Amino acid sequence: MEAVRIGLAGFGTVGSGLARVLEENGDWIERRIGRRIAIKTVLVRDLTKRRSFLPGPGVALTDDPSALADDPEIPIVVELMGGVGAAKELIERSLRAGKHVVTANKHLLAEHGPELFALAEEKGVGLLYEAGVAGGIPIVQTLKDSLSGNRIEKLVGILNGTANYILSEMTTNGLEFETALTQAQALGYAEADPTFDIEGVDTAHKLVVLIRLAYGRDYPLKALPVRGITSVTQQDIEVAREFGYRIKLLAQVRDVDGRLEAGVFPALVKHTFLLARVGGNYNAVRLEGNAVGPIMLHGQGAGALPTGSAVLADLMTLCREGFRPDNTGFGPAPVTPADILPPELAVSRYYFRFTVADRPGVMAAIAQTMADHNISIAQAVQKGDESAADVPIVFLTHAAQAKAADAVAAEIDAMSFTRKPTVLFRIL
Amino acid sequence: MEAVRIGLAGFGTVGSGLARVLEENGDWIERRIGRRIAIKTVLVRDLTKRRSFLPGPGVALTDDPSALADDPEIPIVVELMGGVGAAKELIERSLRAGKHVVTANKHLLAEHGPELFALAEEKGVGLLYEAGVAGGIPIVQTLKDSLSGNRIEKLVGILNGTANYILSEMTTNGLEFETALTQAQALGYAEADPTFDIEGVDTAHKLVVLIRLAYGRDYPLKALPVRGITSVTQQDIEVAREFGYRIKLLAQVRDVDGRLEAGVFPALVKHTFLLARVGGNYNAVRLEGNAVGPIMLHGQGAGALPTGSAVLADLMTLCREGFRPDNTGFGPAPVTPADILPPELAVSRYYFRFTVADRPGVMAAIAQTMADHNISIAQAVQKGDESAADVPIVFLTHAAQAKAADAVAAEIDAMSFTRKPTVLFRIL
Repeated sequence: MEAVRIGLAGFGTVGSGLARVLEENGDWIERRIGRRIAIKTVLVRDLTKRRSFLPGPGVALTDDPSALADDPEIPIVVELMGGVGAAKELIERSLRAGKHVVTANKHLLAEHGPELFALAEEKGVGLLYEAGVAGGIPIVQTLKDSLSGNRIEKLVGILNGTANYILSEMTTNGLEFETALTQAQALGYAEADPTFDIEGVDTAHKLVVLIRLAYGRDYPLKALPVRGITSVTQQDIEVAREFGYRIKLLAQVRDVDGRLEAGVFPALVKHTFLLARVGGNYNAVRLEGNAVGPIMLHGQGAGALPTGSAVLADLMTLCREGFRPDNTGFGPAPVTPADILPPELAVSRYYFRFTVADRPGVMAAIAQTMADHNISIAQAVQKGDESAADVPIVFLTHAAQAKAADAVAAEIDAMSFTRKPTVLFRIL
Repeated sequence: MEAVRIGLAGFGTVGSGLARVLEENGDWIERRIGRRIAIKTVLVRDLTKRRSFLPGPGVALTDDPSALADDPEIPIVVELMGGVGAAKELIERSLRAGKHVVTANKHLLAEHGPELFALAEEKGVGLLYEAGVAGGIPIVQTLKDSLSGNRIEKLVGILNGTANYILSEMTTNGLEFETALTQAQALGYAEADPTFDIEGVDTAHKLVVLIRLAYGRDYPLKALPVRGITSVTQQDIEVAREFGYRIKLLAQVRDVDGRLEAGVFPALVKHTFLLARVGGNYNAVRLEGNAVGPIMLHGQGAGALPTGSAVLADLMTLCREGFRPDNTGFGPAPVTPADILPPELAVSRYYFRFTVADRPGVMAAIAQTMADHNISIAQAVQKGDESAADVPIVFLTHAAQAKAADAVAAEIDAMSFTRKPTVLFRIL
């Protein structure tokens, strides 16, 4: 049987990883679906760029999107360019031409998912994105199929390998944030511009995609509360450890009486939880279904081959006999807006770090401010030595509303004895 | 749209769990697949038995298999009776009648899988079994679809919740095996006859099913080396802990240059591995694909609702438009025999516990026997006090072949100073 010929847009890490997997596992793929999958044309931005890994013989290189979208010999276009501009145009053009699309572009799906799914639905083609969330971990298919009969009560994810690597290095090797970030960049785990990774933006993109898969609703990216890890210090790591916690960047969504409470934030995770054990650049998703109970999936969230594996899974799905698109997991119904629990009403336990002048009455003032907002203190520790003028005071609280926690931080930050902005993490 | 009406064989824990999930999540299921799934007829062994949970109004109870297999209004039969006799007859009869079958019966699939899959293929119907392995954990679909483009290099599973509960209790609460087993039975985790759970038989059934899914080959149950946990003592748990290990009952398969090395055995797992953290009656599967790298899935391996969730996943798959059966994950090709690496050639590190008389020369004799079989000792410890006449000697070895390890055990067991049979575990 003749090979399925695909168009590949983008030939960076993942693109070349996919090419390698299609080559190395060619016989195996043929055994499973009765035919091979071959790259016909690769779309790149710059034809003159020298490449360490080439698509291989018989593969055409082009810088013209229409060479993919308008080629009748190409039934499937794989988009691995990233970004929301050219990628969106290529995907729309390919869908309009009646081609299936496989993408790893969570940014695009988070910002323009509903319209793209509507277009794919209208054309009756597949728009698949297993590689868009948690790399090789099959969370998209798990939510679409295996757990689709479950109501997802809550979902927590470690979805950014770079951020997790940085926090793991800070925890294991006592590095400060900046050092760990530089190291991540040296190892190629972090982009030259790491903003999306360390500010939680990439994690937020993935969370929006997961919410859509779990609930069939669109949670607007702009409405999602997002905090990154740039304010996490070695001292926070140490204090958290003393209390029996690890600090992780978490994406979380919960069904609160039919309304969705969601957000991205650094959080203290009890060291005994499996999520606390997710190290290095690994990803994990833990969810609770009303039938299946708690499930955790763990694996590599990035990298050429793991992400290539996820793209390959989608390609093989498209190549299987009798494929019918169900891109959202909720059939032809359009993706409707989520009923959102206002983030300020979210309830959580909190970790506060205040940096204040070492003078009498400070602890009392902070404690009083907490009391004024009806936040009850579970544990407290004051660090620092005689020499230091600024001392950190850390409070771990019982459950409190986000608006109360934010109000306390704002009031303390306005006080004369405060030396640095208050740092606020959640406790899972 | 009218509900899909199914026949349910067996109304024990899982059967009633499925009924509950179909009821509680009815609206949700309808939203996902456009229709409800309703139980029309329940097949039970004893119609007169009093039941705490009833199938609900409008559901017929019968003790006649033909009421399921021959009912034209029933397109899907769910088999949750267990065993290989009546269950096999019902499934074959249902498949011959052109019905799809969903089963949780790993015992039957392990012993008669190939012929049943051949029959389903001939009839062009689905024979699905997500619930057969690791309960609610979607390992069947993950191997069939999400990771089907990967060559699975190795797979290790904790697949029996009862055995894992017993070992966890021995580890966490210092119980002896018998006490932990009695406790498991009191809690309903273990059957009145726990043989299949504690002797590794149930785990072996599941491993045979997983091997078929991962490699598309049949590893005959009879050829599989299987060891249970009945020889694990509190002392083994303690010694393992001193060396930094937990003891788990593992199912393992590895691709060794195209030949499959597989088996079920108690093994020492480094406490830092996620697998060592799988507690209570949880299950986990860790595998390494040549593209995806290491992946671990963790969740509840048994229980009414988790297993019901897995059955529901299969039911929803069957109800989706355009369903085409691919029951093995390898298309229409028949399941062919695996190329087996003779178990005695398997290479592993080992944990030996010898129970010997406390007299001079014993340690030397044991060490010499090890040396005779070219097994090199990594760590050794001799426990016991002055008073005890019998002393345990524990050796942890470097990599050795199974036949060498077994030969050492046999020779030591034949020696005059040996008081109890040598205990042999693997080290993961």
